[in-house]
Amino acid sequence: MSRTVYVNGEYLPEEDAKISIFDRGFLFADGVYEVTAVLHGKLVDKQGHLSRLRRSLSELDMPSPADDKEIEAIQRELLRRNNVTEGLVYLQITRGPAERSFFYPDPETTHPSLVLFTQAFPLIANPKAEQGIKVLTVEDLRWTRRDIKTVQLLPSSMCKMAARAQGKDDAWMVQDGYITEGTSNNVFLVKRNHIITRRLSNNILPGITRASLLAYAEEAGYEIQEVSFSVKEAQSAEEAFITSATAFVLPVVEIDGHLVGNGRPGPVGRRLRELYIAESLRRAE
Amino acid sequence: MSRTVYVNGEYLPEEDAKISIFDRGFLFADGVYEVTAVLHGKLVDKQGHLSRLRRSLSELDMPSPADDKEIEAIQRELLRRNNVTEGLVYLQITRGPAERSFFYPDPETTHPSLVLFTQAFPLIANPKAEQGIKVLTVEDLRWTRRDIKTVQLLPSSMCKMAARAQGKDDAWMVQDGYITEGTSNNVFLVKRNHIITRRLSNNILPGITRASLLAYAEEAGYEIQEVSFSVKEAQSAEEAFITSATAFVLPVVEIDGHLVGNGRPGPVGRRLRELYIAESLRRAE
Repeated sequence: MSRTVYVNGEYLPEEDAKISIFDRGFLFADGVYEVTAVLHGKLVDKQGHLSRLRRSLSELDMPSPADDKEIEAIQRELLRRNNVTEGLVYLQITRGPAERSFFYPDPETTHPSLVLFTQAFPLIANPKAEQGIKVLTVEDLRWTRRDIKTVQLLPSSMCKMAARAQGKDDAWMVQDGYITEGTSNNVFLVKRNHIITRRLSNNILPGITRASLLAYAEEAGYEIQEVSFSVKEAQSAEEAFITSATAFVLPVVEIDGHLVGNGRPGPVGRRLRELYIAESLRRAE
Repeated sequence: MSRTVYVNGEYLPEEDAKISIFDRGFLFADGVYEVTAVLHGKLVDKQGHLSRLRRSLSELDMPSPADDKEIEAIQRELLRRNNVTEGLVYLQITRGPAERSFFYPDPETTHPSLVLFTQAFPLIANPKAEQGIKVLTVEDLRWTRRDIKTVQLLPSSMCKMAARAQGKDDAWMVQDGYITEGTSNNVFLVKRNHIITRRLSNNILPGITRASLLAYAEEAGYEIQEVSFSVKEAQSAEEAFITSATAFVLPVVEIDGHLVGNGRPGPVGRRLRELYIAESLRRAE
């Protein structure tokens, strides 16, 4: 059976889900998005994602087509219609369709577009959690406002493909000698039981999973250091891991061919994954 | 009467012109484009735009949905159906619709999308050619592969809006103290009858109008220097101008509130505009 998706007020079979070729999301990448994980049919870090969405819209002076309550109702309706108990809900807002011009269209006469769809797949039972992932470092090609979660994802996509071409699972992006992020995740090291991650700035996305995990880890007694680190520092860490809305916490066991620790997932990463999943199951709404 | 546009093999009224929400152009900005000017119903710099399109596709390993002859036939059919004698034809290719994933979809089972539409407006009779334009300099926010003409245009759009907010016509983007480009055009200075423009690299788009104009200017006896210049150097130039497919050659008379020359379009920019239009009318196909 075809998936049901949401497009501008309508629930439609996915094959009928279309937007205008004049949509600014299509012509200008003038759109923002959020991915929310689903566990046991409930939304993980729901409010965090909605708050970041509001910030992205605000940074771009982009009007919103729906308030938080309306968005949440659509998310739940899609989960219900598609029987999704584990997976994700994707949400995208664009400035809407308008005659093509670099200037933003008049917000009085332009309707922002709202698109949501689900993807069902196992999040907890992830074989990569047992094996760990291998990463390749690449130059960070992206624009300078990575704190805004826009659909300008081609550079990340290119880096992911570069990693795959080398037989790796993902790429870590490097700017001025320091690692910024994975292509769709935040990066962490473990050294002497401290958790190390880059400080928030315009250079990285303020990960919702990052924020939740840091809060849970702090409660559990871990010390956290927010500092930048080089590829060499990462390779010599005891452990490394990534966080994202759907990967949760995943160990990184190899960086540019160098094993991290003994090349197998370490105890801190494992414990943090368990902690994040337990807290998410408990708090999911 | 509604405009007729082209979407994946069909000529459609613009209100019916739609693409899937799963199109990678919409979800990942995984698309490239070209804008070709139209004069007297003919295409300006036709082959230059097609060649750059091929290069953009190749740099992104993106399959093409049509060869040059097919694209040209669609361009001409759209001009005919919409009775466009002056204006532009816009063309966009994306990697096509696929289940959302950062990895490129299998090219064997994914059909790249091809979208074209026209815009009719006067290009030769442009009041800005008489008045000149005023620009604001801003930080260049874009990614590092600006030589590929992708639809990641949000940063340019943001800079254009920043310029408008200051009562200016456009923004010039600055990186490491040197001007890269306008938001949708290449930039030039005139000093002691020399034409100065930034050398091609990954930092700027290889403008088709830039290339043609430099060839015509050289034939006409102008000396050309391809070097980077700062905002101060631009402000103290005798003349400044921009080139783009639809602006042709437009004088810049003010940079960050400083007048360029006497604050009025100068003789070299005026002559180059006339030269470009004359050559384009002669060579348009």
